[in-house]
Amino acid sequence: MDTTLEPAAPLTDTELARLDAYWRAANYLTVGQIYLLDNPLLREPLRPEHVKPRLLGHWGTSPGLNLIYAHLNRVVKARDLNAIYITGPGHGGPAIVANTWLEGTYSELHPSVSRDEAGMARLFRQFSFPGGIPSHVAPEVPGSIHEGGELGYSLMHAYGAAFDNPDLLVACVIGDGEAETGPLQGSWQSNVFNNPARDGAVLPILHLNGYKIANPTVLDRIPRDDLLTLLRGYGYRPYLVEGDEIGPVHQGLAGAFERALDEIAAIQRHARTTGDVSRPRWPVIVMRTPKGWTGPKKVDGVPVEGTFHAHQVPLHNVRRNSEHLRQLEAWLRSYQPEELFDATGAPVADVAALPPEGERRMSANPHANGGSVLRDLVLPDYRGYGVDVLRPGDPHSEATRVLGRWLRDVIRANPDRFRLFGPDEVESNRLNATFEATDRAFLAARREDDEHLGVDGRVVEVLSEHLCQGWLEGYLLTGRHGIFTSYEAFIHIVDSMVNQHAKWLKVTRGIPWRRPIASLNYLLSSHVWRQDHNGFSHQDPGFIDHVVNKKAEVVRVYLPPDANTLLCTMDHCLRSRHYINVVIAGKQPGPSWLGVEEAALHCRRGLGIWQWASNDEGVVPDVVLACAGDVPTMETLAAADLLRRHLPDLRVRVVNVVDLMRLQPESEHPHGLSDRQFDTVFTTDKPIVFAYHGYPMLIHRLTYRRTNHGNLHVRGYKEEGTTTTPFDMVMLNDLDRFHLVIDVIDRVPGLRTRAAHLRQTMVDERERCRDYTRRHGEDAPDIADWRWQPEAETNP
Amino acid sequence: MDTTLEPAAPLTDTELARLDAYWRAANYLTVGQIYLLDNPLLREPLRPEHVKPRLLGHWGTSPGLNLIYAHLNRVVKARDLNAIYITGPGHGGPAIVANTWLEGTYSELHPSVSRDEAGMARLFRQFSFPGGIPSHVAPEVPGSIHEGGELGYSLMHAYGAAFDNPDLLVACVIGDGEAETGPLQGSWQSNVFNNPARDGAVLPILHLNGYKIANPTVLDRIPRDDLLTLLRGYGYRPYLVEGDEIGPVHQGLAGAFERALDEIAAIQRHARTTGDVSRPRWPVIVMRTPKGWTGPKKVDGVPVEGTFHAHQVPLHNVRRNSEHLRQLEAWLRSYQPEELFDATGAPVADVAALPPEGERRMSANPHANGGSVLRDLVLPDYRGYGVDVLRPGDPHSEATRVLGRWLRDVIRANPDRFRLFGPDEVESNRLNATFEATDRAFLAARREDDEHLGVDGRVVEVLSEHLCQGWLEGYLLTGRHGIFTSYEAFIHIVDSMVNQHAKWLKVTRGIPWRRPIASLNYLLSSHVWRQDHNGFSHQDPGFIDHVVNKKAEVVRVYLPPDANTLLCTMDHCLRSRHYINVVIAGKQPGPSWLGVEEAALHCRRGLGIWQWASNDEGVVPDVVLACAGDVPTMETLAAADLLRRHLPDLRVRVVNVVDLMRLQPESEHPHGLSDRQFDTVFTTDKPIVFAYHGYPMLIHRLTYRRTNHGNLHVRGYKEEGTTTTPFDMVMLNDLDRFHLVIDVIDRVPGLRTRAAHLRQTMVDERERCRDYTRRHGEDAPDIADWRWQPEAETNP
Ligand SMILES: Cc1ncc(C[n+]2csc(CCOP(=O)(O)OP(=O)(O)O)c2C)c(N)n1
Ligand SMILES: Cc1ncc(C[n+]2csc(CCOP(=O)(O)OP(=O)(O)O)c2C)c(N)n1
Ligand SMILES: [Mg+2]
Ligand SMILES: [Mg+2]
Repeated sequence: MDTTLEPAAPLTDTELARLDAYWRAANYLTVGQIYLLDNPLLREPLRPEHVKPRLLGHWGTSPGLNLIYAHLNRVVKARDLNAIYITGPGHGGPAIVANTWLEGTYSELHPSVSRDEAGMARLFRQFSFPGGIPSHVAPEVPGSIHEGGELGYSLMHAYGAAFDNPDLLVACVIGDGEAETGPLQGSWQSNVFNNPARDGAVLPILHLNGYKIANPTVLDRIPRDDLLTLLRGYGYRPYLVEGDEIGPVHQGLAGAFERALDEIAAIQRHARTTGDVSRPRWPVIVMRTPKGWTGPKKVDGVPVEGTFHAHQVPLHNVRRNSEHLRQLEAWLRSYQPEELFDATGAPVADVAALPPEGERRMSANPHANGGSVLRDLVLPDYRGYGVDVLRPGDPHSEATRVLGRWLRDVIRANPDRFRLFGPDEVESNRLNATFEATDRAFLAARREDDEHLGVDGRVVEVLSEHLCQGWLEGYLLTGRHGIFTSYEAFIHIVDSMVNQHAKWLKVTRGIPWRRPIASLNYLLSSHVWRQDHNGFSHQDPGFIDHVVNKKAEVVRVYLPPDANTLLCTMDHCLRSRHYINVVIAGKQPGPSWLGVEEAALHCRRGLGIWQWASNDEGVVPDVVLACAGDVPTMETLAAADLLRRHLPDLRVRVVNVVDLMRLQPESEHPHGLSDRQFDTVFTTDKPIVFAYHGYPMLIHRLTYRRTNHGNLHVRGYKEEGTTTTPFDMVMLNDLDRFHLVIDVIDRVPGLRTRAAHLRQTMVDERERCRDYTRRHGEDAPDIADWRWQPEAETNP
Repeated sequence: MDTTLEPAAPLTDTELARLDAYWRAANYLTVGQIYLLDNPLLREPLRPEHVKPRLLGHWGTSPGLNLIYAHLNRVVKARDLNAIYITGPGHGGPAIVANTWLEGTYSELHPSVSRDEAGMARLFRQFSFPGGIPSHVAPEVPGSIHEGGELGYSLMHAYGAAFDNPDLLVACVIGDGEAETGPLQGSWQSNVFNNPARDGAVLPILHLNGYKIANPTVLDRIPRDDLLTLLRGYGYRPYLVEGDEIGPVHQGLAGAFERALDEIAAIQRHARTTGDVSRPRWPVIVMRTPKGWTGPKKVDGVPVEGTFHAHQVPLHNVRRNSEHLRQLEAWLRSYQPEELFDATGAPVADVAALPPEGERRMSANPHANGGSVLRDLVLPDYRGYGVDVLRPGDPHSEATRVLGRWLRDVIRANPDRFRLFGPDEVESNRLNATFEATDRAFLAARREDDEHLGVDGRVVEVLSEHLCQGWLEGYLLTGRHGIFTSYEAFIHIVDSMVNQHAKWLKVTRGIPWRRPIASLNYLLSSHVWRQDHNGFSHQDPGFIDHVVNKKAEVVRVYLPPDANTLLCTMDHCLRSRHYINVVIAGKQPGPSWLGVEEAALHCRRGLGIWQWASNDEGVVPDVVLACAGDVPTMETLAAADLLRRHLPDLRVRVVNVVDLMRLQPESEHPHGLSDRQFDTVFTTDKPIVFAYHGYPMLIHRLTYRRTNHGNLHVRGYKEEGTTTTPFDMVMLNDLDRFHLVIDVIDRVPGLRTRAAHLRQTMVDERERCRDYTRRHGEDAPDIADWRWQPEAETNP
């Protein structure tokens, strides 16, 4: 065995035997789950009907996962550690389930899957079986905060779990295939953000079994020195354990764990006693062992153990091929189950005694059931932070800047359970006030002239949307709270991660022992309409469409039109549980429409008629001007203003939508308005001109069942843009005030003839404004300085 | 100056002076673009009205980009290299534009932006100006294949461009902020897939200016040794050039380029002459210079040069603040424009002579305008690869396996311009036949028992969807062809990259000198309905919804229902240009419905009535059963079968949709059916029960303007799933044959009373089938073995 450790043999023979027995038991239970329907303890010779008809699961990764689990059990118990286990190759579900059963946790949660022969039979049968449990380390698996289905996020989840959990050890197994993904490679640098004094420790264990599905892995095939150099470059101290002889590997691995945990303890002790929290060199373990170790060496003449052929189900035709059947039986018996399980089918005392007890069991650690350790945030009353609105539209304010002041005090009030994550956009999104209360966490070198950089930051910034998302997920899943703030367009970078989290939330809702966790909150700013410094590549409001495909019970989308509604929305989001809240808000100065109390009412309604902007009180409106989003709201009000001036007889109703899900039918979304309410607001037969923040199609999609859908006309982003002025941007997409007036004229029966002049003026106005931008490089003053005038002042 | 080079001084004074003059010229033109409306050569004192009212752009990155560009120009010319320049920090648009103007390319393409004073004025004015050009290295910038708006993809684009371009040098500037992203970190390993004999060289230049937007960067703040160690671990040989004194930096950088290019030449010579193509240690240059170098040192007392404050526009109030105005003028004059431009405003001879000429200019390199070097694929006639269909549904075949045989021959016929990229799923997606023609590219260690691994593979597999996407983009953008094959669910990993590529395609369509490139083709298999080994985390058909938000003229979505339609679809996609083609197809054995000639007709139509499955010929149908996707099609035909047997009077029309965009109105999508055609197929008033592969909402979204939309009832994936049997999966989502029959009964007027018995039977059938899976772990034999029976055999 080749290792960078001075090879010691820390284990006594008894210890080694016990570890090995436990490992064999876990392996046995893993193979049993993949293959057996019955005859769990092989009390009789294996017959085809004992075997599942469909063999589904992944063997290859499992013996390695089991080996690491066994060794962790030993040291966690010996050192009385508070540890959780993250399984990067989550397809090794049967391995982790096997361990939870050996630890007893599984049977505590599912009494029918008892720790005896009958329970073992159920354990085997249910795996990857209709009505049973999934093949992955899914939410159903106790102790898991990481399903590992979509590979790449284990290490970021681990760090997220460790933040602000000083006593926690997060052991994180990373597949060598998984290690090829961008997100995983980007995760190594997380150690720059982990504070040895106030955060917990992450112990990465790179599982170098040499293969992914059908290919060798890069990290296994580059020179060994390069691999170790790479990890050193990332700031770690690697310990390599490699071999295919179990005795030496047990010794090597035990030695590596001892060393690594000693170092972690020393690092933490040093930081916590001396106050010197400069970035330490954390250990990482590299374990190079054969894929599918202890499985069939060859099948049908093809080498399997130690090759990619071990990835899924090495013997695939057991029911029909008697040689496969024989090999399966031999394989199972090679673990000597009779030594591992007693007459009742329970693990023998020696095996059962390896893992720690109670909540020290990794599968029973409360941190892995985040809701169970969740404490509410202390939230200052947001009303105290609102903008004083003198009259609608006055003053102008930067919504995110106003929010920043409240967030500053949220941070102050919750120094140990709230973080703000972002890809270097907290300042650019104008949440600067937060830096009055905290720094950005940064453990690498700092300089005197650095601003707001410290070892203790509640703000965590790295130019990686993946890390922001993954850290926050890990943080939430272990019972804390947070916000991810990003440019709107680039949040698509984490689309697939959001999918996985939404799926996690959906499934955990149905698992009684999983407690609700805090919501995943997005604050998306620098949105599509105000990408002043950038251009087309920065314009994409499609994240809303993406999340809306997920289960209605976990998704919420808010488009607060101004500062006070943003405050109120965020307060609501930070109180909510088990949702994905998407909040989109501007950072540029814009009109404040509603006082803070009105804002609260409006947000509670989710959508509402803005009476002060409408003139249809007591009568039937001729047209409904609806809007959602800050820029569309301003254009809508400007359009209402134009209509009021030029067509004073026209009865206009202005409706603003904050909570987009209100538009859906009740039957589709818990926030959905009843048809009756919807019809009351939007009428059943009047034209609706809807100015929407994102891709117009979504509004149709949400409302296509509503009575008045046929009269709905939506303006939004139609994928036109470049680096230009704000008003040019809305014009490029026909969302501007003039075009909205044209839309009204074109749609209100009878108006076309009567308002032909106005229509033509509107066309000319667009030309004039366009032309102005081309000449002067900015918006015409009447546009840039437009303010809402109360009606009295309009029609004196 | 500290560097790992033995510091030499390769430049003569004249060379250094010329380089520096060029650099100053580029910097001057950069600042001019950001600030000036007029007075481009500062012939008169700078006045507020010479300055743009909105100052938009990014200065910080620009001097570094210019410096690298200048040095590259020198060596490209000296060595007569065939080189392109990729700008990771694409927000440095004005820098690259400045260089293209100095090279003359810009004026050749835009004669009004001539290389004289008037042209310079236009160059300045148009930048980030309404009606002008974007602030990024967007498609409008000659020589760019990489906009760099969304950070992280420069290095993968570079490698993609280098593949199969043995003579090309791809210089790739990577921002140190960009280098924090997961995709970028995952890109370093690309050297494992780059063959020094048959691929070109990538020269990464890590631009360590220390900052991103408002934070220092990780790579700048970790110990210098760690950084170099990291790059060595990734298999590179790093050359570090650092300093803030321009003379030594010029010398150091020139030395680094000489060394790096010598090494590249030696590596290539060695591989190409000896045939030894083991993985070399490619050079990488690390350039550590101040952010915003040569810009204002301090503004309003705050340090700017060398800090993050230099990121955007250092002097932001020039029109109103006279001190800012003064500083701007001093800044501009510090470059000594009078030495750099002649009386006409053209670059002086010395400056103009630095860059190479003609197509050697990086901005004029034809590889960076991929369409201009694109050669068609030689495509074998797919008809020769089709499945012989005896009668509809017979035989069963694995669609992707059939396709694999054709792809094998596409690979054979196009050994230098076609590649298949995938995250280790080519085999699992059953495209194995390709390995009869080629290997997988892999330059790290290989073993004897490795399968289909070689230095020359047309298949490129790495467990990184990001790399697959980025490589393919780089490959396509430089005029070649390819396919990305992935599991359907995980293609969301690259959602944001697809956005960027779609935007690139949209914009380049409008740029006359940009020639169309080959389409970006996705083959998504292991789709939502057949995730047998996995479960819920692997089930997501939402990528279709994602792409459909992009401009209609660049997006195509195909759902071939069987092997022959898949063949025909792929043939079409590989011939197409400038699209994003999403093809979703199964890998599991399934019925072959159409012979290859029928398949060709059906695909050409895009959707059509399957007459052999319908019984409404010559009469009005009672119901339309529509379907899209392989699994929904099978369930629909099974439902038609049930209806035929149990309700022989019912007139059923079966419609299959291959080309999803046909459903949209003509006005929305170029493939859209006219309303007349649509109404003919789908009727204007009969119930339509639509069995769809993905989220049902999309079908509503595509058809909400059609006459008969009110009668449309869609079944699809409603986010329910786990590890279970195929039929249980469709039942979980109410997409199964029995439920479709129920839907018909519920919707055809008058049927509910008449068919109450059948409806109840269908409910019972679902129970029976569900129950069977729970007992036996597989689908009931009548389901698993169901075959379509021609009508004659049904009603003898
Ligand atoms: C992002 C992503 N892409 C592709 C897959 C398909 N996949 C499942 S397992 C696997 C190989 C994993 O290899 P490794 O991480 O080494 O795990 P192990 O060898 O321990 O099974 C792949 C590619 C996936 N699960 N996630
Ligand atoms: C994926 C992504 N996230 C966030 C941004 C916003 N952003 C624009 S520039 C920038 C900083 C870039 O820093 P660096 O790569 O070092 O470039 P440079 O310092 O040369 O400007 C950021 C975070 C982006 N463009 N892309
Ligand atoms: Mg592996
Ligand atoms: Mg930088």
